Amino acid sequence: MNDPNDLAAFLELGWQRLTRGVVDRRSAARHPVFATVSPLGLPEARTVVLRAASRGDGTVEVHTDGGSDKISSLKVNPRAQLMIWDETAKLQIRLSTSVTIKQGAEVSDRWQNVPDGSRMAYGASPKPGTPIPESYAYTKLASRDWFTVLVCHIESIELMQLIDPHRRAVFKASEAWKGEWRVP
Amino acid sequence: MNDPNDLAAFLELGWQRLTRGVVDRRSAARHPVFATVSPLGLPEARTVVLRAASRGDGTVEVHTDGGSDKISSLKVNPRAQLMIWDETAKLQIRLSTSVTIKQGAEVSDRWQNVPDGSRMAYGASPKPGTPIPESYAYTKLASRDWFTVLVCHIESIELMQLIDPHRRAVFKASEAWKGEWRVP
Repeated sequence: MNDPNDLAAFLELGWQRLTRGVVDRRSAARHPVFATVSPLGLPEARTVVLRAASRGDGTVEVHTDGGSDKISSLKVNPRAQLMIWDETAKLQIRLSTSVTIKQGAEVSDRWQNVPDGSRMAYGASPKPGTPIPESYAYTKLASRDWFTVLVCHIESIELMQLIDPHRRAVFKASEAWKGEWRVP
Repeated sequence: MNDPNDLAAFLELGWQRLTRGVVDRRSAARHPVFATVSPLGLPEARTVVLRAASRGDGTVEVHTDGGSDKISSLKVNPRAQLMIWDETAKLQIRLSTSVTIKQGAEVSDRWQNVPDGSRMAYGASPKPGTPIPESYAYTKLASRDWFTVLVCHIESIELMQLIDPHRRAVFKASEAWKGEWRVP
């Protein structure tokens, strides 16, 4: 067993599990929960796909439909928490982030890399969430105009490992990620 | 294939998958995400264990440590969204709820049913989240005084099924759960 008080090694484990989500469709970090606060101040959570993770930039990226409720929420309160429960490592990863919404020419490079079959996820008529008389009374647009990249700037990372005895630590960007142990 | 416009059948599927979480440790609904809004207005999410689900009462229950950040958040904003991604049914279940915090004599019946090994989860000194000098510098109290039941009163249920073509519906308690299709 490694030193249980090694904060740097603990953070390294977190980033290993996180970046795995970008390349391995079967890893836990492939599908983080994306939590936001609605314009009415209510909690919201949904599953997303992790598209990029950069330790150097301190960012993760998610793609979404510009008409989704995530966007309405982020325009009022631009904060998101991404949460992953990684059963393999018995590790809960929580990223507290500030989100920049990018569309159009700024993200044309990412759009080029979206496979044809996946473009269906972007754009719908009427907009997602609109009441409709029948379950299939909508059209998917597969439209570049609605393709939206959420660049999530990580402000803090909380790791909680549920191997006995439990360990928990918080790492903040503002403190150069040095980290601090917390009671689990 | 059943009628894709049968709202009652869709809701029935949602409740089937949800109640399974109470009895089947391997089902997706065993471990919902529990999203809240922090006292500072920030989104928070973490994994919890589903302890009860009653379609008749329109409630689900979760147990937690009275010192956890969930409690601080719920005391300011008593709303939680529980979210489950059920891979087997390709179904995302979102429960928008209003939460009642119960402790002490009111929940002594539930405490009796908590196995000894699981009581460790309730109570810690110092409180959960407190900064500590070393990873294991805390004591678990296994204390009935900190055992807390969150009774989540369901206000609406959103189901999104990702079998092509996708289907999404919202069912509200205030409308006797009759349901309405939405654009996915």
